[in-house]
Amino acid sequence: MIDDTLKTWHQLVEEKNANGLDEILADGAVFHSPVVRTPQEGKALTKLYLAAAIGVLGNSDFRYVREVVGESDAVLEFTAELDGIYINGVDMIHCDEKGKIVDFKVMIRPLKAVNLLHTMMAKMLKGTKSD
Amino acid sequence: MIDDTLKTWHQLVEEKNANGLDEILADGAVFHSPVVRTPQEGKALTKLYLAAAIGVLGNSDFRYVREVVGESDAVLEFTAELDGIYINGVDMIHCDEKGKIVDFKVMIRPLKAVNLLHTMMAKMLKGTKSD
Repeated sequence: MIDDTLKTWHQLVEEKNANGLDEILADGAVFHSPVVRTPQEGKALTKLYLAAAIGVLGNSDFRYVREVVGESDAVLEFTAELDGIYINGVDMIHCDEKGKIVDFKVMIRPLKAVNLLHTMMAKMLKGTKSD
Repeated sequence: MIDDTLKTWHQLVEEKNANGLDEILADGAVFHSPVVRTPQEGKALTKLYLAAAIGVLGNSDFRYVREVVGESDAVLEFTAELDGIYINGVDMIHCDEKGKIVDFKVMIRPLKAVNLLHTMMAKMLKGTKSD
């Protein structure tokens, strides 16, 4: 189940196709950002944040470098470079029994990258909301 | 192989026994901090950083909440609370074919927690060095 979802996820990231997220996100999906503690609840908000992430990082030298996959959880490590700043992070994905993503968490290192993402995601989400 | 190493790791964290790290770290082990990009190379430095982490977080309400384990990689997610600040992070462990840890990476969220850890680890490592 989770393998199919991961395959679709990789394809969407590759194609920068945020609309395709509808297919793999559960209705009650929750997004946890690397910057803020408060979870973003619901499919719509999760999609908004993931679309912003795909938008921001899609323009960088983004690549996945390690993948650890369990029964219903996957951790995808990536590296990227944006404005000359090195970004190393993980997408932590938890799926329900149907393979839909119910929980998506992102962590980032080092500190410089967290600060950069903070600034860029804020700009990006502001733009998305007012569009 | 990795299962035995993880079992020992959990025991050491439980007992706050940093000396026991010698047993599970490879000579060429590398530590990647959540704050700084530059890797800390070698068994001695890796032990120093892990001991500091165990020291700092051992006094908090530390617990592991998710574990994703592959052939030679494991991701252990934890939560903690320190000075009233919520910390959520991952220990990313890569082992060699003998089950020794060759790479240990930590990522932390949210931003407040990264800043707190930055301050506390700096103090702790300064203390360790001058002792």
